[in-house]
Amino acid sequence: MNVTVHGRAGHFRTVTFDVRRNAVLLVEQRLLPHEFQVVPTRNFRQTARAIKDMVVRGAGAIGATAAYGLAQGARAFREHDLAKFLRHVDAVCETLKVARPTAVDPVNALNCVRQAMCAGQTVEEQQALALAAAEEFANEDVRHCEEIGRHGAKLIRSGMNVLTHCNAGWLAFVDIGSATAPLYTAQAQGRKFHVYCDETRPRSQGATLTAWELAQQKISHQIIADSAAGHLMQRGKIDLVIVGSDRTLGRTGEVANKIGTYTKAVLAKRHGIPFYVAIPLSTIDWNLKSGFDIPIEERHQSEVLGAWGVVKRAPVEVGLPHPAPRARRSVRRAYVRVANPTSAALNPGFDVTPADLITGIITPVGILKPRELWTRRRELGCVLGKKDLRAR
Amino acid sequence: MNVTVHGRAGHFRTVTFDVRRNAVLLVEQRLLPHEFQVVPTRNFRQTARAIKDMVVRGAGAIGATAAYGLAQGARAFREHDLAKFLRHVDAVCETLKVARPTAVDPVNALNCVRQAMCAGQTVEEQQALALAAAEEFANEDVRHCEEIGRHGAKLIRSGMNVLTHCNAGWLAFVDIGSATAPLYTAQAQGRKFHVYCDETRPRSQGATLTAWELAQQKISHQIIADSAAGHLMQRGKIDLVIVGSDRTLGRTGEVANKIGTYTKAVLAKRHGIPFYVAIPLSTIDWNLKSGFDIPIEERHQSEVLGAWGVVKRAPVEVGLPHPAPRARRSVRRAYVRVANPTSAALNPGFDVTPADLITGIITPVGILKPRELWTRRRELGCVLGKKDLRAR
Repeated sequence: MNVTVHGRAGHFRTVTFDVRRNAVLLVEQRLLPHEFQVVPTRNFRQTARAIKDMVVRGAGAIGATAAYGLAQGARAFREHDLAKFLRHVDAVCETLKVARPTAVDPVNALNCVRQAMCAGQTVEEQQALALAAAEEFANEDVRHCEEIGRHGAKLIRSGMNVLTHCNAGWLAFVDIGSATAPLYTAQAQGRKFHVYCDETRPRSQGATLTAWELAQQKISHQIIADSAAGHLMQRGKIDLVIVGSDRTLGRTGEVANKIGTYTKAVLAKRHGIPFYVAIPLSTIDWNLKSGFDIPIEERHQSEVLGAWGVVKRAPVEVGLPHPAPRARRSVRRAYVRVANPTSAALNPGFDVTPADLITGIITPVGILKPRELWTRRRELGCVLGKKDLRAR
Repeated sequence: MNVTVHGRAGHFRTVTFDVRRNAVLLVEQRLLPHEFQVVPTRNFRQTARAIKDMVVRGAGAIGATAAYGLAQGARAFREHDLAKFLRHVDAVCETLKVARPTAVDPVNALNCVRQAMCAGQTVEEQQALALAAAEEFANEDVRHCEEIGRHGAKLIRSGMNVLTHCNAGWLAFVDIGSATAPLYTAQAQGRKFHVYCDETRPRSQGATLTAWELAQQKISHQIIADSAAGHLMQRGKIDLVIVGSDRTLGRTGEVANKIGTYTKAVLAKRHGIPFYVAIPLSTIDWNLKSGFDIPIEERHQSEVLGAWGVVKRAPVEVGLPHPAPRARRSVRRAYVRVANPTSAALNPGFDVTPADLITGIITPVGILKPRELWTRRRELGCVLGKKDLRAR
């Protein structure tokens, strides 16, 4: 995506790989919208940490980060014993997989890279294949988002008001985004519309990331409190809802996404407003049989009990990759405790929306009914064995 | 309500009147939960400003503040010309009425005090009657909340999980509260239950005020993001919802309350969870014929674009009445800008919940179906003339 800050423009991907330094390069999302920084992770443990701490977040972006993280971990292995190498790769995968338990993209990305590595006979061959597969995973993510944009743009007419939740924009993917892709494509096709961004407490990805992206793209938008969407729907001010997903069940069409998505789906149903979920194929989980089986990540209380922001507006700069500590000093970012100091919080990070609330799923192969994911599973790249399919 | 801070206990009302200084004394709610302060307003304009700026907020509390504000304004009149006095009283009423347009308690309070004043033949008599009527309005608010507690407590069984939204506690009334009254009464009757407090963005009255009240009362509770309630309902973790109201239409049973209330009602309906609204009689509007006629206050964007909190925990003190500036210095309270600096926000403060989503309305005379407000209007103190009633 093209980013313009202080008059300088550049094209960036959210996640890239520096082959020479064996480093994953990430847009530091916790500093946005106040500062634009690209930071490197120097080993697979740092990469896993960056996923866990939400330096990088969003379905496709953490999928690509996990893929690159596996290549990074594999390439850091300095010996020639293949058996030892495979045990090392197992450990790398495990570390990357547990960083964000609700999302399925990292799992699919790691499986994809590991499968590609099998063709190699030596450690060196497997290392090279890992990197190529990770690059291919990232490129496929971009192609999928382009296709989502092409299909989803048909839903958007001029004059519409569109509601989004959280950030499923280019920052949540390698580029372009899922839920935002139809917006960007419709805009490129000359349509004018307005977007309401849910602020998306507790981490405010809507107010910080989606709003920043839309401002960069010069798309008309307003931030609203998460509680305001129901009122706007009741007053006829929302025509369409598009959200992303962290895990979509191929068997049932259920969608796990940022906490609050389910609420918006229930509200949309009551008001007869179309509710769409945009996903690349890597977000589909073909194994789980029920949304109740999706692990719901419970995050730290402090996210609910307070808020991160800046005390004064700080200069926004495009930085070249350099260590995070310097970045932190340049913006007066502060955490304020909002809540009563003697109270605790409960902080589930995701919720599950059942298929009956979803009008359609915008995929790279077209807009499908939630139940069609399963009937068209071959086309959607379902790679379950016969045994798995029988077990349905 | 009894408040204990740093080991010292005291009984406070949210709103009281200092006859000698002709000052309304208010618990400074914007400093809570980090500091407990009682501040005076020295004239009716300051009183209106305190309502507008949310030094005091909540249906009953701003009703009583408006009543005292009118008495304060009337008592400040130093001449003996009754006609001139009545014009002055008109101006006082107008200033107090426009401070928070969605709530009806101030309107009812001002009407109530003005009606009582009519019995006086001189300026001095009317001034004395105004103060007596304001005191009576405040005392009736307390009695109503006690009765709400007595009726509402029957809904609460041990082991229940109760959801609240915003603050309809003693800070929102003169004492005790509406939505919290059933909780306090059930606790006094020995029942143990758990409360989920919606944080209630953008001003976080749930995370700050309700959580602080429940902590003072030693009631088990957790703060949740506004978006989390849907997920908890889906997982069977909420048994009952009780909220307050800023204006309830006597003719239709529609309820205007803090933004987000409507969303919770829609979610409760989907999950078959009882949804109750607790109100004193002063919150009923007998005139309006449709929820769409209720003016919805649109508040400043900055509330959505950032958050108020404390950078470090500050000492909490019980203060005697003294000017606000000193209070502000003693707590390191800061506003942080959370959202993208180049984005705007939309900030409707209230929404309207239709009668079909409301299981019952907990009133001082018992728990009624929303439509029963109209059929039992005489008992509920409806004072419409015959002409108004015919116009229904």
